[in-house]
Amino acid sequence: MRRILVFTGSRANYSSTRSIMLAVKEHPLLELATVVSGAAILDRYGNVEKLMEQDELPVNARSHSLVEGAEPINMAKSAGLGMIDLATIFDNLRPNIVVVVGDRFDVLAPAIAAALMNIPVAHTMGGEVSGTIDESIRHAITKIAHIHFPANEDARNRIVRLGEDPSLVFNFGCPRMDLVREKLDVLKTVRINYSEFYDKYKGVGSEFDLDVNDFLLVSQHPVTTEYGSNRQAIEETLYALLELQMPTIMLWPNADAGTDEVSKGIRSFREKYNPSWLRLFTNLPFEAYLTLMAKTKCLIGNSSSGVREGSFIGTPVVDIGSRQSSRMKGKNLMEAPSDRKMILDAISKQLAHGSYEPASLYGEGDAGKRIASKLAKIQSLNIQKKISY
Amino acid sequence: MRRILVFTGSRANYSSTRSIMLAVKEHPLLELATVVSGAAILDRYGNVEKLMEQDELPVNARSHSLVEGAEPINMAKSAGLGMIDLATIFDNLRPNIVVVVGDRFDVLAPAIAAALMNIPVAHTMGGEVSGTIDESIRHAITKIAHIHFPANEDARNRIVRLGEDPSLVFNFGCPRMDLVREKLDVLKTVRINYSEFYDKYKGVGSEFDLDVNDFLLVSQHPVTTEYGSNRQAIEETLYALLELQMPTIMLWPNADAGTDEVSKGIRSFREKYNPSWLRLFTNLPFEAYLTLMAKTKCLIGNSSSGVREGSFIGTPVVDIGSRQSSRMKGKNLMEAPSDRKMILDAISKQLAHGSYEPASLYGEGDAGKRIASKLAKIQSLNIQKKISY
Amino acid sequence: MRRILVFTGSRANYSSTRSIMLAVKEHPLLELATVVSGAAILDRYGNVEKLMEQDELPVNARSHSLVEGAEPINMAKSAGLGMIDLATIFDNLRPNIVVVVGDRFDVLAPAIAAALMNIPVAHTMGGEVSGTIDESIRHAITKIAHIHFPANEDARNRIVRLGEDPSLVFNFGCPRMDLVREKLDVLKTVRINYSEFYDKYKGVGSEFDLDVNDFLLVSQHPVTTEYGSNRQAIEETLYALLELQMPTIMLWPNADAGTDEVSKGIRSFREKYNPSWLRLFTNLPFEAYLTLMAKTKCLIGNSSSGVREGSFIGTPVVDIGSRQSSRMKGKNLMEAPSDRKMILDAISKQLAHGSYEPASLYGEGDAGKRIASKLAKIQSLNIQKKISY
Amino acid sequence: MRRILVFTGSRANYSSTRSIMLAVKEHPLLELATVVSGAAILDRYGNVEKLMEQDELPVNARSHSLVEGAEPINMAKSAGLGMIDLATIFDNLRPNIVVVVGDRFDVLAPAIAAALMNIPVAHTMGGEVSGTIDESIRHAITKIAHIHFPANEDARNRIVRLGEDPSLVFNFGCPRMDLVREKLDVLKTVRINYSEFYDKYKGVGSEFDLDVNDFLLVSQHPVTTEYGSNRQAIEETLYALLELQMPTIMLWPNADAGTDEVSKGIRSFREKYNPSWLRLFTNLPFEAYLTLMAKTKCLIGNSSSGVREGSFIGTPVVDIGSRQSSRMKGKNLMEAPSDRKMILDAISKQLAHGSYEPASLYGEGDAGKRIASKLAKIQSLNIQKKISY
Repeated sequence: MRRILVFTGSRANYSSTRSIMLAVKEHPLLELATVVSGAAILDRYGNVEKLMEQDELPVNARSHSLVEGAEPINMAKSAGLGMIDLATIFDNLRPNIVVVVGDRFDVLAPAIAAALMNIPVAHTMGGEVSGTIDESIRHAITKIAHIHFPANEDARNRIVRLGEDPSLVFNFGCPRMDLVREKLDVLKTVRINYSEFYDKYKGVGSEFDLDVNDFLLVSQHPVTTEYGSNRQAIEETLYALLELQMPTIMLWPNADAGTDEVSKGIRSFREKYNPSWLRLFTNLPFEAYLTLMAKTKCLIGNSSSGVREGSFIGTPVVDIGSRQSSRMKGKNLMEAPSDRKMILDAISKQLAHGSYEPASLYGEGDAGKRIASKLAKIQSLNIQKKISY
Repeated sequence: MRRILVFTGSRANYSSTRSIMLAVKEHPLLELATVVSGAAILDRYGNVEKLMEQDELPVNARSHSLVEGAEPINMAKSAGLGMIDLATIFDNLRPNIVVVVGDRFDVLAPAIAAALMNIPVAHTMGGEVSGTIDESIRHAITKIAHIHFPANEDARNRIVRLGEDPSLVFNFGCPRMDLVREKLDVLKTVRINYSEFYDKYKGVGSEFDLDVNDFLLVSQHPVTTEYGSNRQAIEETLYALLELQMPTIMLWPNADAGTDEVSKGIRSFREKYNPSWLRLFTNLPFEAYLTLMAKTKCLIGNSSSGVREGSFIGTPVVDIGSRQSSRMKGKNLMEAPSDRKMILDAISKQLAHGSYEPASLYGEGDAGKRIASKLAKIQSLNIQKKISY
Repeated sequence: MRRILVFTGSRANYSSTRSIMLAVKEHPLLELATVVSGAAILDRYGNVEKLMEQDELPVNARSHSLVEGAEPINMAKSAGLGMIDLATIFDNLRPNIVVVVGDRFDVLAPAIAAALMNIPVAHTMGGEVSGTIDESIRHAITKIAHIHFPANEDARNRIVRLGEDPSLVFNFGCPRMDLVREKLDVLKTVRINYSEFYDKYKGVGSEFDLDVNDFLLVSQHPVTTEYGSNRQAIEETLYALLELQMPTIMLWPNADAGTDEVSKGIRSFREKYNPSWLRLFTNLPFEAYLTLMAKTKCLIGNSSSGVREGSFIGTPVVDIGSRQSSRMKGKNLMEAPSDRKMILDAISKQLAHGSYEPASLYGEGDAGKRIASKLAKIQSLNIQKKISY
Repeated sequence: MRRILVFTGSRANYSSTRSIMLAVKEHPLLELATVVSGAAILDRYGNVEKLMEQDELPVNARSHSLVEGAEPINMAKSAGLGMIDLATIFDNLRPNIVVVVGDRFDVLAPAIAAALMNIPVAHTMGGEVSGTIDESIRHAITKIAHIHFPANEDARNRIVRLGEDPSLVFNFGCPRMDLVREKLDVLKTVRINYSEFYDKYKGVGSEFDLDVNDFLLVSQHPVTTEYGSNRQAIEETLYALLELQMPTIMLWPNADAGTDEVSKGIRSFREKYNPSWLRLFTNLPFEAYLTLMAKTKCLIGNSSSGVREGSFIGTPVVDIGSRQSSRMKGKNLMEAPSDRKMILDAISKQLAHGSYEPASLYGEGDAGKRIASKLAKIQSLNIQKKISY
């Protein structure tokens, strides 16, 4: 029996580790060990322990390692504390392989601790391109990991170019799709029951019946490298929507630099036009958001969900500007520069087209199972890595 | 004034950081801050603080972070503790750039802490290829660092292939050569005074006058990936030397896996042949070793010093086997497989040839100054990295 | 010059360390060094750095060491992380004496780190008696500290009974009083401007003019060791107040175990009687609360402020139940069991009596200066402690 | 089943924890959990894990937490790191009670972590008086612990005076005696086989047959508070021995401050008199030392073993000077000031007297069993402590 330890460091992480853990747990040749850490054990960020209990997944160890505070120093402190904890935890649980997902700072700790302790590291979601410090962390972990499970073919190619042994880089798709696949049929047919929905998730603006009306979904975040022009960008989108006057669900932007520009743009637009067709939400749980993605006539903005989940579901997407420029994109996605006419034009085309066939750019929704299967079959992982050039 | 923080984590590290620190200290546009950490502040491993005092370099902060014990877990614990310490130290010293050297586990802490705290990282000695966990650490740090100072052209090319921005990768040579250059004239002419030498550095075997006699220098370490055949390898070398019967200084092997095979080979050879031409030392300080390199007729074995310092000094080298196979090599070096005849043949050729012209494969001995100068001039380092493909 | 390092671990801590730091800073023979740590550097808990800036106190080092989460394990993690940080910080700042205040878990780190590093520890607020883990921490720190500045005579006696050298235990009063003394004249005469007050501090219930009306102030917290009877206790108080129908400012209870019982008692009383004479606040800044204490006709409940600040200001206090049973009490305080008649009776007596003469049970409001002066004068502190029996 | 976690932090610690762990393991109502930490898992200091394996005791978790280096800062760092580790380990093992022994810095971590995590702490060896930082640590842990097992009656009384609840302070004797009792019959009758003994434990000086000859045993350490007069002190002892010229086994002094004075005194005495009756050892394992204690005609010096194990075995002891002045002493011990005549006189009396009856000052050698039994029986430990005055 190989003991596979899967590390979950945050609520978002769990969307990816869940199907891997479930598949490892069920595999006859594998034994599952789990560690939850940092933000994943804090109620404030959505306690993952409770979700795991519901999913009948064990929690073998917990690392309380999130040093409180918004300053960057706390990421460094937390990573260090996590490394100390995980060394002790790995010493205790003695896994054969440690699985880590993604590129957030909390993933450095298990990856480095395992590698230094001669435990092979499997890494999911490597090889992609993005902004923030995650870009550095992701590729650093690739250079530390022994076996790679990128989420798409582009990412696979990039990992190979980074000098990794191609025979140890497997594109089995994105494990986040596994959850979408599991829920998809329900998502497409379930009634949203709009009054309950508005009650539950609050928000501001008009309330329209989401089961009866066709509606648009907008998720547009600031582009950190285009600081200063984010207000202009959101206004171009809003003016395109003003032409359409279709019922529209919109999300407030995330917390990246530039978020104030976007928020101000939205707020002053609302004051000026008092748009009866617009409803804004601060935050929606992943499943609620997926439901909207499955039902909307078009997803507009620059969220990665349009690229990933959107291609899997077949949601028509208008992707605006440069934020997703490095991502691998499916046919469901139409690009538009940040220009109201071009955006309006693209939305109109997508409305005319309607739903797309589901695509498997980011996998078939069986990544967890294929990863578990590979971890069971692989002969042995040479702890000594060597760059291929 | 840019404040450049240089991190020294061990005695070996100091051979490289010394000339960078001296050059930063003297540069009119730069301010030097230093941190010594882990093994570098322990007497047992050669206290670097004392050396810095002699060199009139300040010590601005110390991180006691070496968790005691030979098990791999202690590397993970030490790295985590170092990260916690360095976060606090960087918060206090507020450097503009952090300089780290090499690929040992203790270098992860300053590189990651700085990057997470939005402080640009300069990395020296990246892009090389080697064994052990250092191979993974080195390339991971490359993916985290913002500006690169590889020690040779091969390494530079490899860093560019790893997706780093070529305009931020500078081959200024290896800073370890700076010390060699500083001492070279003295090394070549100084009298060794063999009786003092033997008194000071102990060792076993015959004592011959190193100022009068031509002598060979042998430094052959185990090849960890050829575990099981290391005794055979050292014996091939010893039988070649037996033919020559020239005065020979030999070093016991380092502590890598396979060291016992090499030691046994040497011990049983000594018992069998009682070679009057052989002197063995456990360990020599870097300067004493350099002196021998400057004076020997031929350096034999598989030490990296033959490749690096050897090419700079012009020492004739016979490089045996695969241990240095991935290194960039100069003309001073003749390769031989682990076969007594071929080794003997190569040594004879080198003895016939004599000293080589110094080569600048690993730089001109001015790396420290060029690095400092670049750190002063560079416009600004974008904290946001992006892979080039 | 002796370098005195003063540690501040929380907002509450700062009420005590402030006057000590100011006095050390001004003393000609002392040099001030400061460290702020944990909760003290988090905006969420009232960032002490900003307050220190306003008070023109330097911040020499910061220890980000609060591990996030409400579980007890996070106290242990935070204490450990704090110890690691403070060791590095003390190594850097090289204080002659470290001053720590009180009994919260975050104070363990500087006290133990200093003592282990042979730096004498001065401890303020030792020798008192209370509940929770603070009771253990306080006495443990007394056994580690080298010089003691208890806040009153009872506490001084207890420290001596604990085996400490009586010649190193000084009752200079409570440094929290220093702030009260500094502000007292203003507090007594300042107009509250009730509409601003209600605007600023929110709260629920009636708004009455606090400058015109006589009013009562109620602060009653759960008694953790009387879990189950806290609702009954608050109701006895509320029914006493119902008889009086005087304008009353009341604070919601703190977060100790039993807080729900108290809150429920208040909520159902409000629903039942809809009392027009009652205003409730969740939380008031220390100075705003002091202002109310200086102006109220009677403070009712079981808050320690009645015992300490109350005796200093001369506020009439009705202290209900056992919560302050181990505290040293002044004449301003009348005790009452948790019985509505007895409470009513006591309040009536206090209303008849009016303000008391200020008492110096907890010092004269010059503790900071006297502590600084003693730290300057004391010959030398023997780092080797020895129990007196 | 109560889960009792026993913490072992060093080789010396194991002499005390061993019998407690064995008794807990065998008790039908208790479940044993063990943690080894710091020096206890390092070969260099005598790996306790191997000893526990021989004794068939499980090792449930290991905390690698000894930060390397001789400076005091490393004690603080190690204590902090230990606290972080033990918090995670306790969270995992979930003990009902944590047992800690003694007063070294490494014991702070489990005591504080447990108390902060609401786990009752049992403390053995509290209430004694000694020098160094251990004096502070010991009493601090007493103030944190919930149940106390002092090693003798004096210590018990001191703990009660420290304000601990007398009904939770149990003098069951010193668990180090348990091992002596277990081995005593063998120790008294076993043949030492002197040539093997000298082979095994090396040393310098004459070799005499320890099974045939009567011999003296000398163990005299520096008195740290009498720095400067330690050479004089050892010389007084040596000159007394010179009169006797009896075969004498002597130990070199421990590493406390002043050790050089003692060593120099011994070395220059040896050079001057070349004493044929003297054999010196650097260090002896505990059992070998016990054997000598069981066989010697008189133990001379100032070692605590004379006080503790000596009284239990009945070894005649001449205790010189002040080092053991605060210890509880039995009839086997004769005190002498540091004066050659008085020492000689005392030794002569002890030689005339011969062996003493074993005394139970430090218990009956059943401390482990009685501690386990009490931990099983005690109703419940109130996590909330309260000082008794």
